[in-house]
Amino acid sequence: MYILVTYDVDTTSKEGARRLRCVAKACLNYGQRVQNSVFECEVTEAQLCTLKNIIGNVIDTKQDSVRFYYLNRNIARRVEVLGKETSYDVNDVMII
Amino acid sequence: MYILVTYDVDTTSKEGARRLRCVAKACLNYGQRVQNSVFECEVTEAQLCTLKNIIGNVIDTKQDSVRFYYLNRNIARRVEVLGKETSYDVNDVMII
Repeated sequence: MYILVTYDVDTTSKEGARRLRCVAKACLNYGQRVQNSVFECEVTEAQLCTLKNIIGNVIDTKQDSVRFYYLNRNIARRVEVLGKETSYDVNDVMII
Repeated sequence: MYILVTYDVDTTSKEGARRLRCVAKACLNYGQRVQNSVFECEVTEAQLCTLKNIIGNVIDTKQDSVRFYYLNRNIARRVEVLGKETSYDVNDVMII
């Protein structure tokens, strides 16, 4: 299951920046950061539950907003980018 | 066609904040702002071309990143929110 996590947090405050780092850390276990507060993750149902729990414990539910979008499988053909390209194809060959 | 527009811009600079306002203005012609730099829009192919042109002329392609995600029709069941809910159902009844 391919999901998009978008996180609206006030990063001008230290606390908000810390919360964003924690959310980023949780999301990066399952995918990549494509923008400052946008993550593309590939997860199972169980992993999604875990991810939501972790994020739910981090955010300030009164100030912050996290949205989970379910994207269909062939995500690569469904995304277009203007400006800086900041993501990589997780299914592509990685040369280390 | 339902699209998600996510815009990564440095809003701590005046210029970046101005660009975000311009992008927001363009996107709000076709949908709603669900987070600070995330917009859900319903557009035709032609409208999408127009929107991309407008946005392309506003952003700083070296610094900014705008991503267009194509979402499938039944978006309402495909979005989950943690924390503040900041959107409305565009197909719902609006009482003025």
